[in-house]
Amino acid sequence: MTLSHIVALAGGVGGAKMAAGLQAALPGGALTVVVNTGDDFEHWGLTICPDLDTVVYNLAGVNNPATGWGRVHETGQVLQAMSDLGGEDWFRLGDRDLALHLRRSEWLRQGISLSEVTDRLRRSFGVSTLVLPMCDEPVRTLVHTDEGDLPFQHYFVRRRCEPLVIDLSYVGADEARVPDSVFDAVSAADLIVLCPSNPYLSIDPILSVPAMRRLLRDAHAWKIAVTPIVGGEAIKGPAAKMMREMGQMISPLTVVDHYADLLDAFVLDNADAVLHDAVQLPTLITDTVMTDLASKQRLAQEILDFAAGLAGADDLPAGSPDARLPASS
Amino acid sequence: MTLSHIVALAGGVGGAKMAAGLQAALPGGALTVVVNTGDDFEHWGLTICPDLDTVVYNLAGVNNPATGWGRVHETGQVLQAMSDLGGEDWFRLGDRDLALHLRRSEWLRQGISLSEVTDRLRRSFGVSTLVLPMCDEPVRTLVHTDEGDLPFQHYFVRRRCEPLVIDLSYVGADEARVPDSVFDAVSAADLIVLCPSNPYLSIDPILSVPAMRRLLRDAHAWKIAVTPIVGGEAIKGPAAKMMREMGQMISPLTVVDHYADLLDAFVLDNADAVLHDAVQLPTLITDTVMTDLASKQRLAQEILDFAAGLAGADDLPAGSPDARLPASS
Repeated sequence: MTLSHIVALAGGVGGAKMAAGLQAALPGGALTVVVNTGDDFEHWGLTICPDLDTVVYNLAGVNNPATGWGRVHETGQVLQAMSDLGGEDWFRLGDRDLALHLRRSEWLRQGISLSEVTDRLRRSFGVSTLVLPMCDEPVRTLVHTDEGDLPFQHYFVRRRCEPLVIDLSYVGADEARVPDSVFDAVSAADLIVLCPSNPYLSIDPILSVPAMRRLLRDAHAWKIAVTPIVGGEAIKGPAAKMMREMGQMISPLTVVDHYADLLDAFVLDNADAVLHDAVQLPTLITDTVMTDLASKQRLAQEILDFAAGLAGADDLPAGSPDARLPASS
Repeated sequence: MTLSHIVALAGGVGGAKMAAGLQAALPGGALTVVVNTGDDFEHWGLTICPDLDTVVYNLAGVNNPATGWGRVHETGQVLQAMSDLGGEDWFRLGDRDLALHLRRSEWLRQGISLSEVTDRLRRSFGVSTLVLPMCDEPVRTLVHTDEGDLPFQHYFVRRRCEPLVIDLSYVGADEARVPDSVFDAVSAADLIVLCPSNPYLSIDPILSVPAMRRLLRDAHAWKIAVTPIVGGEAIKGPAAKMMREMGQMISPLTVVDHYADLLDAFVLDNADAVLHDAVQLPTLITDTVMTDLASKQRLAQEILDFAAGLAGADDLPAGSPDARLPASS
């Protein structure tokens, strides 16, 4: 069976890498990336959407592979001048990156939706893959820590994830709605990939949009999550640290439990092959650590092949226990 | 007689140069610069105030002497990225310059007045001279041309002053008011210098603020204008071209007539010494072309000495014909 409509849920660096791999493995137009906007914030009077931009930069091949965020061949002239003027310099906005924030902020102030703005921006980078914000309304991840409540970027960048995390909330989610474009993409999808992103910081904000979780769960697509935890560590970022602080086991199984009824299948890293039986879902076991584009594309192709096998073997509705195959490896 | 409170009316490059010269010639705190904001405009979603910035950059010694506008040691990374994204690139905003626009725009959107914003910015550059916008309300110079109405920067930068100028208007001036800071500075002034700026583009917008012209005329200060026309040409910019197109003689006398009852004295360039008698005001004749800081300071000192002589010789109210001396040269 051929999978022709693939939706990836993405946030953070892992999400952007997986999206780039899927784009490379798929024919043009087959992939739609639904992106976390809980990281968005206002800075220097501009609206910054780090996850949307990281996805677009990765899909356009202009991302900075050294940092994981921002653009390659970047300079910091404005940041230096801002610092000299006494302005905020803890969030390291690059000059070329800034052009994007300026354009987006101007359009948003003109009343253009974030979906439309994002579509214009990805097209200006020559990206043919659809990139959709999880919603058009502002949703802001708030991190409840032992030092008090911190807006996401203050926790993540300014405080370098040092405070202990007690809980999270997604401010504004109650007023958000699933955009038509996201509804259409999810409804038409054959496969939904939950990228190896931080479940709490990158995927949960997407799921916090009212009706989003049900939309995903009820979609006819196969739903497969890629572990962001490998060998007891997060590949990047604070996922493992947060699991520990929130009293969870640092394990891919915590991710499986977290997504629960959303999942039809799972992707484990070779390092955690021993957990195979415990996953209790069809499971692909492979090297999940993405470095260059070739490794991203290889992982994506393996997932696509695995999912095609699942779907082809049994056309029962996704989510039905009968549709679940033994793990392929 | 010592002149202790000096106000300069400034716009454009000539105004900023004269302001820098006066600052260099005067003790700290003696100078207040009232600046044209008719050139201001919105670009990239930011509020740009070219004349305010040119004055601050000149007073801080960080101006670009080659261009007359912008900052020295400037780069154009954001502009290039904006151009690559299909954004507007006809107004050549530099990276370091951009930091200023970002800060100002953020503060203005927070409801902070342009006067307060400007004060914060000049202090962040270590400038002790007061720099005051002519008003806090937006006033926008509109150029009526043979190609239709053009917002100032579209006429000046985008169309390089090529269209024929028929007339000018200052949109929003009716709703503007003289800020308290400007009122206080003008009221307390011993000397008001109309800088060698374009009368139509730089000084008239200031005079278009209701009550501003009367405030200046009735001030007890001596009022002296420095010619922006030397030897039948403008030192910089389209003043001469505009005079021709609007049916005026290209002459310092056109400037004298234009300011009319506002003036108590005038500064002619050596090149136009022959016009001395025709000015019909006390007139300083000297080299008015400012290049380096030394030449700016020298011109400023000559004007201050000349004005002190006028004021010391006769303490009759400024503007009284009896107070006018024969020209000093």
